[in-house]
Amino acid sequence: MNSVSGGVCAPRGFRAGAAAAGIKNPQGTRLDCALILSDAPAAVAGCFTTNRVKAAPVLWDQGVCVGGAGRAVFVNSGNANACTGDRGLDDVKSIAALVASAADVPVTEVLVCSTGVIGVPLPMDRMERGVRACAAALSPEGGADAARAIMTTDTVPKEFAVEVPLSGGAVRIGSIAKGSGMIAPNMATMLCFITTDAALAPADLQALLRRCTERTFNRICVDNDTSTNDTVLCLANGQAGGSPLTPGTADFDAFAEALEALCAETAKALVRDGEGATKFIEITVEGAATDEDARLVARSVAQSQLCKTAFFGEDPNWGRIACAAGYSGADFDPSGMSIVLEGLTIFQDGRPTDYEEADAAARMKRREVRVRVLLSEGAGRAAWWTSDLSHDYVSINADYRS
Amino acid sequence: MNSVSGGVCAPRGFRAGAAAAGIKNPQGTRLDCALILSDAPAAVAGCFTTNRVKAAPVLWDQGVCVGGAGRAVFVNSGNANACTGDRGLDDVKSIAALVASAADVPVTEVLVCSTGVIGVPLPMDRMERGVRACAAALSPEGGADAARAIMTTDTVPKEFAVEVPLSGGAVRIGSIAKGSGMIAPNMATMLCFITTDAALAPADLQALLRRCTERTFNRICVDNDTSTNDTVLCLANGQAGGSPLTPGTADFDAFAEALEALCAETAKALVRDGEGATKFIEITVEGAATDEDARLVARSVAQSQLCKTAFFGEDPNWGRIACAAGYSGADFDPSGMSIVLEGLTIFQDGRPTDYEEADAAARMKRREVRVRVLLSEGAGRAAWWTSDLSHDYVSINADYRS
Repeated sequence: MNSVSGGVCAPRGFRAGAAAAGIKNPQGTRLDCALILSDAPAAVAGCFTTNRVKAAPVLWDQGVCVGGAGRAVFVNSGNANACTGDRGLDDVKSIAALVASAADVPVTEVLVCSTGVIGVPLPMDRMERGVRACAAALSPEGGADAARAIMTTDTVPKEFAVEVPLSGGAVRIGSIAKGSGMIAPNMATMLCFITTDAALAPADLQALLRRCTERTFNRICVDNDTSTNDTVLCLANGQAGGSPLTPGTADFDAFAEALEALCAETAKALVRDGEGATKFIEITVEGAATDEDARLVARSVAQSQLCKTAFFGEDPNWGRIACAAGYSGADFDPSGMSIVLEGLTIFQDGRPTDYEEADAAARMKRREVRVRVLLSEGAGRAAWWTSDLSHDYVSINADYRS
Repeated sequence: MNSVSGGVCAPRGFRAGAAAAGIKNPQGTRLDCALILSDAPAAVAGCFTTNRVKAAPVLWDQGVCVGGAGRAVFVNSGNANACTGDRGLDDVKSIAALVASAADVPVTEVLVCSTGVIGVPLPMDRMERGVRACAAALSPEGGADAARAIMTTDTVPKEFAVEVPLSGGAVRIGSIAKGSGMIAPNMATMLCFITTDAALAPADLQALLRRCTERTFNRICVDNDTSTNDTVLCLANGQAGGSPLTPGTADFDAFAEALEALCAETAKALVRDGEGATKFIEITVEGAATDEDARLVARSVAQSQLCKTAFFGEDPNWGRIACAAGYSGADFDPSGMSIVLEGLTIFQDGRPTDYEEADAAARMKRREVRVRVLLSEGAGRAAWWTSDLSHDYVSINADYRS
């Protein structure tokens, strides 16, 4: 598996285009909509927010994914089309029809995503202009513009692509994503669009995407809030040639591994660009009774405000980590717990070790910090990626009206 | 029910004493241990942290509460005696024996509580000095000193007392508490000690204290972390005279109501003094399918970092509130949700209203803010108390080593 350039346009048969339609700012100086198109019919799979409050486009896209065929994804930033009632859903249908007409694809194969302010109806005149401009801008080199157009509070665009050698020749997988963080007025959301020129049946693609999402995008946190718009979509158009990849084959496994690696790389990029983040923290839990227990412990440490402020303060605070593990809901014997911080065991079998405080403090100063929590219950393991909680996080999320 | 002075010494037959034993600081200039004593035998009940990692004194006190009789509570601040292994438990037993000897009560009726730095063995020579000094200082006027001695990161001592008229004469209930917040090195913890001169059977007292704790101390959050030492204890010595209060009588109900009100007042004081808190926020949920669903929604909003930073920023951000309700795990129809902020309906039936932004912003500037989330599922209701998330919170919890 090699990295390649091109993002969502790296796989064969995909084009993308972006435009500034005045949705983010009235002057129309910032890219705020993007279209990703497969030139050939493609299977589609999607994973969506579990929030009870779902934005209108999420409801629409869930329906498209049930159909299993998807040719086009239209995305706007600047307005989330959430909490907009029946009008919001009507607007999504209108956008899908506009895209279908502009790109000459069936309306039932058009996916629509929105991110931005919530509770405000979409400016449909500008959306229409945006669809037309994106269609006109479609190009095999359009991936980078699309990655920029979907940003809200992100400070850097995120795009990745890999090439995977399979028995019938290489296939490619590409992604663009935008980060999670604050909601209104700049409602952010996790959006990720993945393209591949491999061929997969929709049901196989859906099962695989769900597994990858569970292990990557569902293992990150910046502020623990699940937005109304979170969406991961994957289009597979088979343009690399060869027969569909089927589960149980070596080719399928190789593809699955590459897709998960790409999702992990993308998810980590979202955490690295988390609001106010100064550090990237990986929490690994080993030795839990089950993988689920390991997940609970890893999540609890990753989400703890006290642990996250300690990471910001570069404080090797094993007490907060042990405490967060203890209230995670996982069942374990505290006297069998150890904590390893960047390779240094600071807590062993339920007690602090006689580690050198200066040594531990020096390791905490690194920009990427790996924390291992070792239990003595079984073989359960899990990882979670998180950011620290900084003054800037509070400023970004509290002070924007001032 | 009237407020009275005296804290834990307001009820008849209770004395308290405090001392500076050099546990908080070597110079011994700050009160850091306290003893609360009932002159007569008393029933005892306790509610303890659900953290898997429990400090040694918690394990000891749970045993005392099973016995149901408790005469003395000895508390130190400055050292939590948590993650200290077998030695920690031996130290608790030694302290209980010292208190039993100094106060002339059975060792099995001595409760021990600790709060402060974790992972460091107790300085037993100083603890011994502290026990002796507290016993010597015992006085019916000692409640206020005890309230000060148990403080760690608290900025104000917390003590409350009420008098409740019953058919056989008035009884009194008193409390002192210390707040929750950061862990090591100044591990904080929620500790609350309640005394009453009413008479109750231990089993009735335990059931009542559990219900009150569930509705008050378990409905507050500052940073969502559950410490290794959280403890609520209640001693009932019957010195007001009269026969024991029994469930199903009007007197028992009046006592129960007063105890819950006292616990609520104490719990709210902890939130008001939350680390870095600039505001007190009450989240009320009505119209949920069940009380449990209402609890989930109230907790989700109260714990959301995004909502808490919005409260700090005095931003009437209904989007974050709706979003946190949506991912709470409670089952409800988002199109039946409304949000009322300090009496102003800013979100109704799933849509923002056309409220005046300036009006909403002005209401957010109040020091105490009431948020009501109205659902249309049933009669389930719940309340939760929380603080805002400020720059000072991050500073207090990240910067103390600098």
